[in-house]
Amino acid sequence: MTFTPQGFRFAVTSAGFRKEKRNDVALIVSDSLAVAAATFTKNRFPAAPVVIGREHLEKNPYARAIIINSGQANACTGDEGRKNCEQVLEWLSKPICVKTKDILPASTGVIGEQLHMDKWQPAISALASKLGRCTAEDAAKAIMTTDAFHKISSREISCEQGTVRVLGLAKGAGMICPNMATLLVVLLTDAQIDAANWDKIVKNAVNHSFNQITVDGDTSTNDTVYALANGASGVKIVSESDRKLLASTAEKVLQELSYMVVKDGEGASKVARITVTGASSDSDAEQVARTVGQSQLVKTALYGQDANWGRIVAAIGRTDAAFNADDVTVSLCGVELFRHGCPTDTDFDSALAEPLKQRDLSIDISLGSGQGSYSLLAADLGHEYVDCNASYRS
Amino acid sequence: MTFTPQGFRFAVTSAGFRKEKRNDVALIVSDSLAVAAATFTKNRFPAAPVVIGREHLEKNPYARAIIINSGQANACTGDEGRKNCEQVLEWLSKPICVKTKDILPASTGVIGEQLHMDKWQPAISALASKLGRCTAEDAAKAIMTTDAFHKISSREISCEQGTVRVLGLAKGAGMICPNMATLLVVLLTDAQIDAANWDKIVKNAVNHSFNQITVDGDTSTNDTVYALANGASGVKIVSESDRKLLASTAEKVLQELSYMVVKDGEGASKVARITVTGASSDSDAEQVARTVGQSQLVKTALYGQDANWGRIVAAIGRTDAAFNADDVTVSLCGVELFRHGCPTDTDFDSALAEPLKQRDLSIDISLGSGQGSYSLLAADLGHEYVDCNASYRS
Repeated sequence: MTFTPQGFRFAVTSAGFRKEKRNDVALIVSDSLAVAAATFTKNRFPAAPVVIGREHLEKNPYARAIIINSGQANACTGDEGRKNCEQVLEWLSKPICVKTKDILPASTGVIGEQLHMDKWQPAISALASKLGRCTAEDAAKAIMTTDAFHKISSREISCEQGTVRVLGLAKGAGMICPNMATLLVVLLTDAQIDAANWDKIVKNAVNHSFNQITVDGDTSTNDTVYALANGASGVKIVSESDRKLLASTAEKVLQELSYMVVKDGEGASKVARITVTGASSDSDAEQVARTVGQSQLVKTALYGQDANWGRIVAAIGRTDAAFNADDVTVSLCGVELFRHGCPTDTDFDSALAEPLKQRDLSIDISLGSGQGSYSLLAADLGHEYVDCNASYRS
Repeated sequence: MTFTPQGFRFAVTSAGFRKEKRNDVALIVSDSLAVAAATFTKNRFPAAPVVIGREHLEKNPYARAIIINSGQANACTGDEGRKNCEQVLEWLSKPICVKTKDILPASTGVIGEQLHMDKWQPAISALASKLGRCTAEDAAKAIMTTDAFHKISSREISCEQGTVRVLGLAKGAGMICPNMATLLVVLLTDAQIDAANWDKIVKNAVNHSFNQITVDGDTSTNDTVYALANGASGVKIVSESDRKLLASTAEKVLQELSYMVVKDGEGASKVARITVTGASSDSDAEQVARTVGQSQLVKTALYGQDANWGRIVAAIGRTDAAFNADDVTVSLCGVELFRHGCPTDTDFDSALAEPLKQRDLSIDISLGSGQGSYSLLAADLGHEYVDCNASYRS
């Protein structure tokens, strides 16, 4: 069941940006001005909507609407791409009665094409007329690109003054999709909270969810998380305990969505949770987790259901994290495979035959040199990945 | 034709370390004590022969023999692995009349197994009796693991005092092979040169060859380059011009071998030369080249013969090299695809249809911000890679 925050309306339509005819534009409107926070791709070739959304929120951490299209990324489109994005916001403003400066844009799809502006005007009319007659699910479906399923997560929590809802939508099936530009997330709540605390909650939640996953190690030009808190519940988040509750709920919602993104990783058959402990710092732990999670050889072994600890050890060994080789231990699905510089005595091929057939796997690495830790969700790498990525564009 | 340096003898035999019966041990002996240089893997879990070879050369930059086995890596084998390696050198010493301390060991094969010591004694007898009756090609073949072909390169050069030969052997089909431990190189010359200059020549040549390739971004536990200069030609390398000639020849021999390793990359169908120019430093250029060359999405696009410039741009964009996005240009096989932040007008799908079918591809990236440059050879990523790596061990 979906807990949709109060005071948000949704609309979707088919503008025709995609080859197959299906809904490809979503509009989300808050009845009142909402506190807005966001995180954006760090890619140095950001798409036009990323540039415009970032400028908007730097000036003014409030918004009333989010417009998202799939099919066209509006990335690598230069000045014309920027003007087109601004034009869409302007066209949209009047029929939905929201000031241009209060609308946040996001796009996902093919890089390098200019937006099909002729398709935007009829789409905007349709969106305006359908506003409030579509659901959050409809919106989650309309923003999909190569996603195999739509991604939605929501929770209802009891704060001191009353009940509050938190809802997240995401699309993405890889850090970057094939010539598509990928990860888009919308987080909505009807809690009433100040801009500074909302910003902190959102950045922290993103750090502990979307920043801890990898499908292919590539980062898209369009990654965006928009988060609106419109206060429509009338519930003010003031106390420290309410702030913590809202923060942990936002984090859980984004973690559920980020798990779904890895599960739906292009051609992925496995979701590996790589947990590194005993590092001399969290950043050392992160480096080890990312090196293992992005190793082609580890990823293909997971795909092949092969208890190939040698590849995990070799990947750890090419980091510059602080550790003594003799102190490192490696376990796969709870079975310890490596300790004191040698394989353990376990007959791991038998012990792991069944666990490695599952979708969800765990790799636990202890470096034995401190208190630092990090956890990363990683996809495997198999034939379906190659199928999806070798021939997508052409 | 192979130019074999004077004063080196070769022997190979089948010890039975591999499943299929074929030669799997190679011995190279110099008639006189040779100046020895080496580079070793930087992996933090180095194999026993790496540890022993490194200690040897730190004390004493001279050697007379190199013993290499394939089938067993002697990596992650602890104290017992080290003792076994020392035992092999001791057993070998007497029958070939070379002091234990003048023999350099290298191993390649499955990680985590102890050496089969019972197979070493008959192998050593066979090697001793065959010494001088085998060729450098025989040695190159005996050290192969998943290699599809053996790798040998040699040159003859005229120095001031006479003719000198430089010969290289290599094995490896990936920075790391599936649960195998990979890249081994032997470089031999009969030039007479002092230890300090030989070391400089070898390190520089490795930097400009094996350190500029990537198949899968993984680094093995056993990578070793051993380089012997025995002076058997009687030709002393003294003048600056002779040193330069020998250095450039060593570099060319290792570059030819490193090209062969990428060409033979596990399941690789393409060899892409990624050249980055106009960077503000060589290390910025290197970072861009490596990020592009190790991007799964770029690699799968090369495999799919897809002119997918958006993936190259997205990979450049996730580096922190210094550049302005508007100054970056990207060409694929000589066709410019990206300039001023947008795709060029070229009909690149037509222009590139034929070039992308070739094995050898070029990706040229200019960052427009300085004089730094770097060149990297990278393999693609396709179904054959997954076939080779998903199920190798099991």
